[in-house]
Amino acid sequence: MDTIISSANKEIVISTEGPVALIGEKINPTGRKKLARALQERNYDYVEQMAIKQAAAGADILDVNVGVPDLDEVAVLQEVIKVVADATDCPLCIDSADPEVLKAALPVAPGKPLVNSVSGEQASLMSVLPLVKDRGAAVIGLTMDDEGIPNDPDKRMAIAEVILKQAVKIGIPEEDVIIDPLVMSVGADTNAGLVTLRAIKLIHEHLGLNINLGASNASFGLPERHVLNQAFLALAIAHGATCMITDVARLGLAIRAAELILGKDDFGRNYIGLYRKQQKVGE
Amino acid sequence: MDTIISSANKEIVISTEGPVALIGEKINPTGRKKLARALQERNYDYVEQMAIKQAAAGADILDVNVGVPDLDEVAVLQEVIKVVADATDCPLCIDSADPEVLKAALPVAPGKPLVNSVSGEQASLMSVLPLVKDRGAAVIGLTMDDEGIPNDPDKRMAIAEVILKQAVKIGIPEEDVIIDPLVMSVGADTNAGLVTLRAIKLIHEHLGLNINLGASNASFGLPERHVLNQAFLALAIAHGATCMITDVARLGLAIRAAELILGKDDFGRNYIGLYRKQQKVGE
Repeated sequence: MDTIISSANKEIVISTEGPVALIGEKINPTGRKKLARALQERNYDYVEQMAIKQAAAGADILDVNVGVPDLDEVAVLQEVIKVVADATDCPLCIDSADPEVLKAALPVAPGKPLVNSVSGEQASLMSVLPLVKDRGAAVIGLTMDDEGIPNDPDKRMAIAEVILKQAVKIGIPEEDVIIDPLVMSVGADTNAGLVTLRAIKLIHEHLGLNINLGASNASFGLPERHVLNQAFLALAIAHGATCMITDVARLGLAIRAAELILGKDDFGRNYIGLYRKQQKVGE
Repeated sequence: MDTIISSANKEIVISTEGPVALIGEKINPTGRKKLARALQERNYDYVEQMAIKQAAAGADILDVNVGVPDLDEVAVLQEVIKVVADATDCPLCIDSADPEVLKAALPVAPGKPLVNSVSGEQASLMSVLPLVKDRGAAVIGLTMDDEGIPNDPDKRMAIAEVILKQAVKIGIPEEDVIIDPLVMSVGADTNAGLVTLRAIKLIHEHLGLNINLGASNASFGLPERHVLNQAFLALAIAHGATCMITDVARLGLAIRAAELILGKDDFGRNYIGLYRKQQKVGE
């Protein structure tokens, strides 16, 4: 199944046939003080640099999130979208769960953006999906609902179905729904990785949709996080993940490595291509 | 299924229930000039250091291989076994396919060693397995035979069955046979990783034996080999691999990471334990 998103002049196909689409995670102020300050000051040089660097490191899509206190999220997200769209050709992943923010941001984004995210919560389904439909965007659906994030893979799968049904019901094409089965830290719960892997497999087999992950949550609170993230993303790809919001410069090659090991990269073209690209920019 | 091997005073259980047993690969002169020279000079200080370092980095078992030109393999292997057995408590993996070398080495090894390796080749089956039986050792069986290494996972599985049957026939307990389904480079053949992963799964499901791998072959000839090795070993563990001959200081933590993600490491005890151990020795 293909989810097509675009910028003004570039189309990216997120496909269940692979390769995994790389969504650059860095334009997000959570845990990034320098970016948070720049956004609060509405100084966008640093944002522009981050956009350019991530594109050069091989990002297919750029996530944009401005969720930080003391800031006019509506205005700043609009401005950031313009800066990033001017700086690179990458289609955008508009990262907010707030329908008011999305409502203001979506018209500003060029091409066909990806909305990150809707959830199975009633208020989210009712407010976010109509905005996605009206804009003709694609959307990431998180497998949580009004009762929280279930620990049971079958229940995460059931929430994915609820989101898909509601989206299709209001006229969003099935292929424009991407499911994120959510990753919790294995530091807090040893079974957290396994639950997500099983949910990925269920969603892949039963719904056949594209599946997104934020690969780095799995390692939260543990030492040598990149080692855990690499293990997690390799296993996630084997189970059916098809796009990832990640640090592309640090983990992009690990994603291509997993695909090559799984026989999904003829002659290692994607692996070697990304390696060369990253060598060039000195990553 | 448990394969128990031992040194003079330490028992190691290689178990299909996990965790993966870590076999230190470094006492092997292939591609290691300094070690090759030391062995040719029969100067064993460097070998002793390598043994101690690998044990400190978390190796459960140490592979010993002295296959280098211009050297009396029989005498040197006997001497190296004594040096390593004196330097650490780790049980040994005696790495030679030559029955004459094994015949001389096995009586010198303390406890119950692991023999690396027999293959499905007639000459190997007929010469190596009786030595394993007489010594009461365990053995690694490589899935290759007189026609070479098959590209078909079912055929690798069939060779594993031939090795197991012959071993059991002459009185080696089933649990003392470990199968190595062989890893070729994905640089030479894009499907090489997948073939091995499928062979692991078949052997795991149909024979239930312990499964060994030399994880680093998968990346031969490609850049950033550790990234590929990490992807491969995570996937191999998910498919059923239970022991690995590897660079424990560099890849041991990646193995524990994959187990933690797969829900096989309660409270992350093994992951954090190995992390702390390696921090202590400054790896």
